[in-house]
Amino acid sequence: MACKDGRSAILEKGAQIIHRKGFNHSGIQEILDAAGVPKGSFYHYFKSKEDFGLNLLDHYATYFISRAESQMKDKKVPPIKRLKDFFEGFRFFFESNGCELGCPIGNLSQEMGDLSPAFRKRLEEIFLMMRSRIAGVLNEALRGGDLPGSLNANEMADFIVNSWEGAIVRMKVQKNTEALQLFDRMIFDSILKPTAIHNTGADSE
Amino acid sequence: MACKDGRSAILEKGAQIIHRKGFNHSGIQEILDAAGVPKGSFYHYFKSKEDFGLNLLDHYATYFISRAESQMKDKKVPPIKRLKDFFEGFRFFFESNGCELGCPIGNLSQEMGDLSPAFRKRLEEIFLMMRSRIAGVLNEALRGGDLPGSLNANEMADFIVNSWEGAIVRMKVQKNTEALQLFDRMIFDSILKPTAIHNTGADSE
Repeated sequence: MACKDGRSAILEKGAQIIHRKGFNHSGIQEILDAAGVPKGSFYHYFKSKEDFGLNLLDHYATYFISRAESQMKDKKVPPIKRLKDFFEGFRFFFESNGCELGCPIGNLSQEMGDLSPAFRKRLEEIFLMMRSRIAGVLNEALRGGDLPGSLNANEMADFIVNSWEGAIVRMKVQKNTEALQLFDRMIFDSILKPTAIHNTGADSE
Repeated sequence: MACKDGRSAILEKGAQIIHRKGFNHSGIQEILDAAGVPKGSFYHYFKSKEDFGLNLLDHYATYFISRAESQMKDKKVPPIKRLKDFFEGFRFFFESNGCELGCPIGNLSQEMGDLSPAFRKRLEEIFLMMRSRIAGVLNEALRGGDLPGSLNANEMADFIVNSWEGAIVRMKVQKNTEALQLFDRMIFDSILKPTAIHNTGADSE
């Protein structure tokens, strides 16, 4: 921890604690204690708890982006396979942690969606960023002829992201990855199988 | 309120308050005040806050079942159309309440899924009940030839329920019903697109 600055330490420990306990249940003192940072310094780095929360969303988004970058950019792997592997990687993560915690973005959407316009705005920006990465891969598949030209990549990407979030909610009560496996089969073995698509949206981009 | 017994009043007010604030954030005193019931009587009706929470889940489930019974049993309406109308009814509800609150079952799954085995078990029972009602309608459509015989009704029903929960999470940050409309288009205009083997009018609206 010696060479890590206080702000990063607060965000990293805060990310872990809030992923488990939610935003409103996590106290600043608890996060500072875990980060080994004196209380006074919190307001040196962040204007308020909400400001900290918004920076935390950026922290989660950065993790998602770096993971997407590393797993979805290998052009040697067919685009749809890359997308499938990307979600499978998260499934392995949940398998290894007992299907706990869920997605921090989904959790905070549910917890803060009605409470903070600033959270809401930033969360939707992150959803749009997820959508954009997934739509990029779908567009590659479209260009390669792996998907029917009628597919609307943005709509499909939104549906994939939303359905994934729902599968994670279900996983939290099932405490197994059945819902994530069902998501995988429905999206990759059925919906994105060219022959299975009857009609994927009103107009393509 | 005079002719309503204390237990029902507590469950009804509790359902409203916990739908908005979550289980852990809602205090027993707040619920009793709203229900107009003296504090001493809470432990007359419920063994603990968790016991109250489990009874509250039954209360939500009863609402879901009675809504499903009334909206999905009209055999004069083609089965897929009934299912579509059922979800559309919830969409109208969210449109009328500013896209707030979300689904109490999804909310509590996320909040309590890692915290209480008793909640988790009851929540999954409710998900299975939702699945069963939806699968029943899908099986009717299968028997009528409105869906391909290869479709697994239970799996499709699970996917529909999970994807719906995810669409609601997204709605909470978008504060519009775009995600619910996308769910509707993807499920009913694409994935469940009638095969028209037997033209029963399932796709006429």
